[in-house]
Amino acid sequence: MISLADLQQRIEQGALSPEAAVGRSLDAIRVDDKTIGAFVRHDENAPAQTAGPLRGVAVGIKDIIDTADFPTEMGSQIYRGHHSRADAPVVMALKQAGATIIGKTTTTAFAATDPTATLNPHNHAHTPGGSSSGSAAAVAAGMIPLALGTQTGGSVIRPASFCGVAAIKPSYRLLPTVGVKCFSWTLDTVGLFASGVRDVARGLAAMTNRPDLVVPDAVTAPRIGVVTQAFAGAPEPSGAAALQTASRAAERAGAAVRELAMPEIVAEAWRIHPVVQDFEAHQALAWEYRLNYDAMPPILRGRLDESRGITARDYDAAMDVALRARQALAAVFDEVDVLLTLSAPGAAPKGLSSTGDPRYNRLWTLMGMPCVNVPAQVAEGGLPVGVTVIAPFGADARALAAASFVEDALKR
Amino acid sequence: MISLADLQQRIEQGALSPEAAVGRSLDAIRVDDKTIGAFVRHDENAPAQTAGPLRGVAVGIKDIIDTADFPTEMGSQIYRGHHSRADAPVVMALKQAGATIIGKTTTTAFAATDPTATLNPHNHAHTPGGSSSGSAAAVAAGMIPLALGTQTGGSVIRPASFCGVAAIKPSYRLLPTVGVKCFSWTLDTVGLFASGVRDVARGLAAMTNRPDLVVPDAVTAPRIGVVTQAFAGAPEPSGAAALQTASRAAERAGAAVRELAMPEIVAEAWRIHPVVQDFEAHQALAWEYRLNYDAMPPILRGRLDESRGITARDYDAAMDVALRARQALAAVFDEVDVLLTLSAPGAAPKGLSSTGDPRYNRLWTLMGMPCVNVPAQVAEGGLPVGVTVIAPFGADARALAAASFVEDALKR
Repeated sequence: MISLADLQQRIEQGALSPEAAVGRSLDAIRVDDKTIGAFVRHDENAPAQTAGPLRGVAVGIKDIIDTADFPTEMGSQIYRGHHSRADAPVVMALKQAGATIIGKTTTTAFAATDPTATLNPHNHAHTPGGSSSGSAAAVAAGMIPLALGTQTGGSVIRPASFCGVAAIKPSYRLLPTVGVKCFSWTLDTVGLFASGVRDVARGLAAMTNRPDLVVPDAVTAPRIGVVTQAFAGAPEPSGAAALQTASRAAERAGAAVRELAMPEIVAEAWRIHPVVQDFEAHQALAWEYRLNYDAMPPILRGRLDESRGITARDYDAAMDVALRARQALAAVFDEVDVLLTLSAPGAAPKGLSSTGDPRYNRLWTLMGMPCVNVPAQVAEGGLPVGVTVIAPFGADARALAAASFVEDALKR
Repeated sequence: MISLADLQQRIEQGALSPEAAVGRSLDAIRVDDKTIGAFVRHDENAPAQTAGPLRGVAVGIKDIIDTADFPTEMGSQIYRGHHSRADAPVVMALKQAGATIIGKTTTTAFAATDPTATLNPHNHAHTPGGSSSGSAAAVAAGMIPLALGTQTGGSVIRPASFCGVAAIKPSYRLLPTVGVKCFSWTLDTVGLFASGVRDVARGLAAMTNRPDLVVPDAVTAPRIGVVTQAFAGAPEPSGAAALQTASRAAERAGAAVRELAMPEIVAEAWRIHPVVQDFEAHQALAWEYRLNYDAMPPILRGRLDESRGITARDYDAAMDVALRARQALAAVFDEVDVLLTLSAPGAAPKGLSSTGDPRYNRLWTLMGMPCVNVPAQVAEGGLPVGVTVIAPFGADARALAAASFVEDALKR
């Protein structure tokens, strides 16, 4: 993989030109993407910029995010050839920081769960996860140092876990979703993929002009609360092992680690996530579902068929549960700095018929809290398994620092 | 003006066909819009639907809201000829309720403050207000019974006040802003214009499948807290007179009315509204401002030039003030059911060089609370002046019922 932090350092020192850095990504795409299929399209002539902290950094953009220089096809035939007039604000943020938008990465249709043809770079017989399939795979395959994805249930953290890359789903609306195809406005969150936690942090800091997000050289040992999310069911052995490995490594490195039970309202929030998501999806995708029914991707269409009965009253009740769970979780953080939990039930499932299960991710999306995936170990078949570090809303710097602590601890 | 409630009743009773109802709007547009200029474009052949509570209801859509059947030009040359692929969810909600999308109404460029050429139907020498200029004017001129606008500062309530129509800026995200050109994602709110409060309520109830929003025949007298917003400066005599007239009328009709002082944090929230708005606008309009600077509307461009220095730290502090003010206001509603305040400093200013001042609206947009404009009296020059009824977040039905009470009281 290409480390963003390393790349920045070499460019700053003059050891590598921005043009050469972007050229290496283009070479890697040319060689590897025929097999992996992480890109919908890319620009062979994408120019490097000469200024900005992300100069020389080739970035892949999930194909539900508007780009003025490429079509945005939402992974669906309904949007074939669709070209937005403007760049989404997150794309402009990358450009203003000096990055090169190198291409559009594959997405499940409308960022739901109908799989793409993208392969997991660690084992081609397995899914890279979804819905940000191409962004996770392109970073994991070493084609690009940075990519944007989005998460509504678990579409950033899960593919990051399956592909063995670091990723952040930041606090709700730290990055605007303007110009990003909406599935659920209460949940949709733009996230970043990169080689390691420090790389992700540097990307986010540059995009947001928030230098405090960069992980300091020395990180204080955090107080960690381990959360198994029993309300979401039991994990597979590889998921459970990853969580145990990460918590033990953190403890050995000096962190105070203990298991935390969640208040009942938090489990209730986990249960009502689909109510919020699907009630909003019926509105967000009304034009597609009502006027282009036959062209809708089948799994998503079936999901919308099944959730037609959700009422405004159901939705209001669910939103009230979400609010109370956010308040209850704020109190949990009086006792610990961060939470540590599963990124996925286990390693990436075999085959491309499913993008995996977001059941350990969706609660935290609804809570709006920053989540960072840390690759924790490698399971059978060479498949990576990650864990998630979670901080309170707005404490993205804390989430990144603690995740970096766990990442370093795992390397010892 | 065309009353939506009357129209619905006549259509239900078979006294008027949906086709004939839409035809009357088309006739009115043909006759009056040459002078008023409320529409950017409309469809002379717009078909009526035969089912749904809004069948026969011709609706005008502010031209920053995506429509599959019309271009969406944002009031700016930068988007000349721009045509979205999909209908925005709010447009689909209208269609699903049986409405006819009859055309696109004028908007200040990007819903900011560079004026349109639209005239105030009550006095052609005055502005109809902005940024939802065409929607307010088209309803006021009796061309259509319902129109959509948006508010970031005061762009629904202010033009409604200037044009003498009822309007609601609902609770934040009761109506999705998906497919609506973004200025500030924390503030942008889709609102409705109609002849009277009961008409607005029927439109919103039909769009949202929330029958409880319809105002009941008999409304209980509310406890009203009058708020003068001294932190926003003194009103003009016509604005002060409207507030006094409305509060006295409500009291005579049996409401408990008293003046309320606001906690200091609320005044602080009023002050920081522009920080939230402009920090987000720099991101939301980054493509336009950075890559199309020369084509930007001059007043908006100047505003963005001046606000370039706002930092992430300023923004975070402002968002924290907003949160604390929302909490403080929730406690204010322990003592009263609704607040009553100014909709504008006074009647519509003369000329078309300004769309008027949103200083009495912006706080409530930031608070995310439902606001209803009630036309209160007519000032010199035949110009209407309104007042605003405000309920807690999520209590849109209460806001509408209390506004209807005030409206009825004013008619006595």
